[in-house]
Amino acid sequence: MVVEFKNIPIHDIAIEAKELLQAGNLEAVKNSLAPLHSTDIALLFEAVGEGAVIARLFRLLSPEVASETLLELEGRVKEELLEVLSHKELTDIVGEMATDDMTDIVSELSEDEGRKVLDGIEWKEAIVVQKLLKYPEDTAGGKMQAELVRVELGVSVNDAIDEVRKKSEEVQNIACVFVTDSDGRLEGTVALDKLILAKPKTLIEEIVNKDTVRVMTDLDQEEVARIFQRYDLLSLAVVDSEERLVGRITVDDVVDVIEEEIFEDFYRMASLNTGERALDNPRRSFGMRSPWLLLNLGTALIAAGVVKLFEGTIESFVILAVLMPIVAGIGGNAATQTITVIIRGLALGELNLRNARKVIMKEAIVGLANGLLIGIVAALAAFILGANFMIGLLLFLAMTASLLIAGLAGSTIPLILKSLKADPALSSSVFVTACTDVAGFFTFLGLAALFIKLGLL
Amino acid sequence: MVVEFKNIPIHDIAIEAKELLQAGNLEAVKNSLAPLHSTDIALLFEAVGEGAVIARLFRLLSPEVASETLLELEGRVKEELLEVLSHKELTDIVGEMATDDMTDIVSELSEDEGRKVLDGIEWKEAIVVQKLLKYPEDTAGGKMQAELVRVELGVSVNDAIDEVRKKSEEVQNIACVFVTDSDGRLEGTVALDKLILAKPKTLIEEIVNKDTVRVMTDLDQEEVARIFQRYDLLSLAVVDSEERLVGRITVDDVVDVIEEEIFEDFYRMASLNTGERALDNPRRSFGMRSPWLLLNLGTALIAAGVVKLFEGTIESFVILAVLMPIVAGIGGNAATQTITVIIRGLALGELNLRNARKVIMKEAIVGLANGLLIGIVAALAAFILGANFMIGLLLFLAMTASLLIAGLAGSTIPLILKSLKADPALSSSVFVTACTDVAGFFTFLGLAALFIKLGLL
Repeated sequence: MVVEFKNIPIHDIAIEAKELLQAGNLEAVKNSLAPLHSTDIALLFEAVGEGAVIARLFRLLSPEVASETLLELEGRVKEELLEVLSHKELTDIVGEMATDDMTDIVSELSEDEGRKVLDGIEWKEAIVVQKLLKYPEDTAGGKMQAELVRVELGVSVNDAIDEVRKKSEEVQNIACVFVTDSDGRLEGTVALDKLILAKPKTLIEEIVNKDTVRVMTDLDQEEVARIFQRYDLLSLAVVDSEERLVGRITVDDVVDVIEEEIFEDFYRMASLNTGERALDNPRRSFGMRSPWLLLNLGTALIAAGVVKLFEGTIESFVILAVLMPIVAGIGGNAATQTITVIIRGLALGELNLRNARKVIMKEAIVGLANGLLIGIVAALAAFILGANFMIGLLLFLAMTASLLIAGLAGSTIPLILKSLKADPALSSSVFVTACTDVAGFFTFLGLAALFIKLGLL
Repeated sequence: MVVEFKNIPIHDIAIEAKELLQAGNLEAVKNSLAPLHSTDIALLFEAVGEGAVIARLFRLLSPEVASETLLELEGRVKEELLEVLSHKELTDIVGEMATDDMTDIVSELSEDEGRKVLDGIEWKEAIVVQKLLKYPEDTAGGKMQAELVRVELGVSVNDAIDEVRKKSEEVQNIACVFVTDSDGRLEGTVALDKLILAKPKTLIEEIVNKDTVRVMTDLDQEEVARIFQRYDLLSLAVVDSEERLVGRITVDDVVDVIEEEIFEDFYRMASLNTGERALDNPRRSFGMRSPWLLLNLGTALIAAGVVKLFEGTIESFVILAVLMPIVAGIGGNAATQTITVIIRGLALGELNLRNARKVIMKEAIVGLANGLLIGIVAALAAFILGANFMIGLLLFLAMTASLLIAGLAGSTIPLILKSLKADPALSSSVFVTACTDVAGFFTFLGLAALFIKLGLL
């Protein structure tokens, strides 16, 4: 398709399609959907929103476009559609897919519904799907497709080209031919351009490139994505524990994984359920966010508890209460800075437990330096708000403590979670902010109480 | 290469390499670097840290590996290395690169140094690089490479295969042949597997696939990445304003763009300079973070100013100061939840100015609902901290106001920034948190003052 890319007016088309559907003009609806790519149709369905309308639109698509569109859908729209479609309809649509995509869809159906769909598709494919279903969805095995062109070491270039010809209908994006020994163990690959350029009688074993990146079926999808990036791959081979070739993963399957994994990190950092989407309905969002906010209430109560210890001090010097939001606000923001940098470093593999000490030291130094700087400026600003010199000094010390803790806790907590094999981003904003609040308030109010006792305030 | 993927002990190798270098055993250093991929060598350089050692290690690499490694480096390590290398060394290394990569490196050199390097490489490539240098780095033109296989409509399959053969040394990953008319205007592509399967005498115009995605040179790289994802592409054609083919972009160049763009969003949201890296030295991090924290001090002073208005009220009821951290803390966290969801929705194209109103409404409802829930629980918790019924009621109302504002400001501010064509994530945490603090404190303390006046407290 020729994409002179401009934003496609999805919402206008959605409104038009709804009106045409109500008017019963199905041909016109088909025409308005025809120029759209499946990804755009999926966005259009999101825009339409109403399950019943979506199902009617979906049934107007050809099986091929319907299958591509179904694969682009996610969340509630997809769930509702899978529920509404009969297993006959599902079978037709799933029949159009590659085995990795078939597996994704079947795994989302009820066991009974899934079995009916598998019974309906070609038996060879059904066997492959049954095998693929055994791999967890977020592993190399779960991401791979069984469709690939495979030849043995001893065949000729001519035979290999014949094999490409045979498979060219079934396999998308044949970038290379995979080469195995007679037991199916992966030996290497021959890129398609090399195959074109070789003499027809040449044996594959003479031109096979043994430098082929391969991973085991159980490797986590995040690691798989990292390998694609690290080595700038377009595809990689997946092998079982005995080095036998079982599938391949192509880069287009991985792009979405990379994106998803990064968003998940930041979702966890912000205490969000990774399933939440911007266009979810309010009830769903409420249900997913409130447990985290209740947890946050727990940590906020700790900070409040610290302040409670110094009620008498605040009663004597209410200006302390005026300045508390400065301590808490900047501490929280410095913590977010540190956590964000750490989460990125961990995600990109720049950070690990080996250089953890170095990074924690660095964050402590940065926190301390910023604490001193912001502390001085904040102390000056406090005068404007009516504080005297000693209160300014207290604010300076509290800012320094709070930002030092922001650096220390902001780097240590994610790294500890990582070393415990937990997600380093998990709710780290909430916990680290609690640390900075407690440290900041304790320094600020505790020292104030001490100063009063010493007659300094 | 065969990657039975396990984490490569980069840090051990780095320590070993340093020791061997000090001992003057260059052969052994070469041997310890030999099995590493350029990406791993780049990580190793990051681990080594010291510019002088990195330069010595770098000079032990073959020009080919050196050029790949240089392309994987970023930040300070890259800058320092580019400064240390002579233009003779740079010319040898740059000579190994594809034109898009040459352009990236030359653009980072001083004008004088860049000219010397261009003088040193092959003149045909130098001309291409000079053309590419005119495109901004973050556009399709800046990302594309000029290396591709191009044939005209009228030639035969046999001629096209000859062209692939001629270019196979120079062009990496030839997935398809680009087809143009005699004026160089893009007509379409022929995938390599289709080329293999066609009869040698067939004309290209009979098998050309005109459904080729193309973009203009000035399209932003984020849009380019989005198109790759949207249409699951492996490569796309770049054309000038007259539809003439000028280059191609391959998916491996885009994977890093996608990752980088998402991280940039969250960096901006957390008020971080997008150039900062986890392993930067403390001085650099300090310099990049402190301006943002000073900005944050400004917004925190607004919140403090609101509290200042109600000093007398707090003096009468110090419990208000005890509960203030709860209002501020949870408001800030709810704001972060909303902003994170909005930033993700905007990045993925699920959100736009068309459905902005719907999303703002949704966030307001979710904020209100969570405010009511958390408000009730917080009011109950306040009793533990010694508050009476009226104070609990105030806390309930303040939490509700704060979380409602978190939903409203957290969705509206990024969307307004977007509509102003600014970055929607820009420092949004700081601004939205200021809004929730002000709304929360104003409700909490202002109503307290009113209640006192009315004799209710």
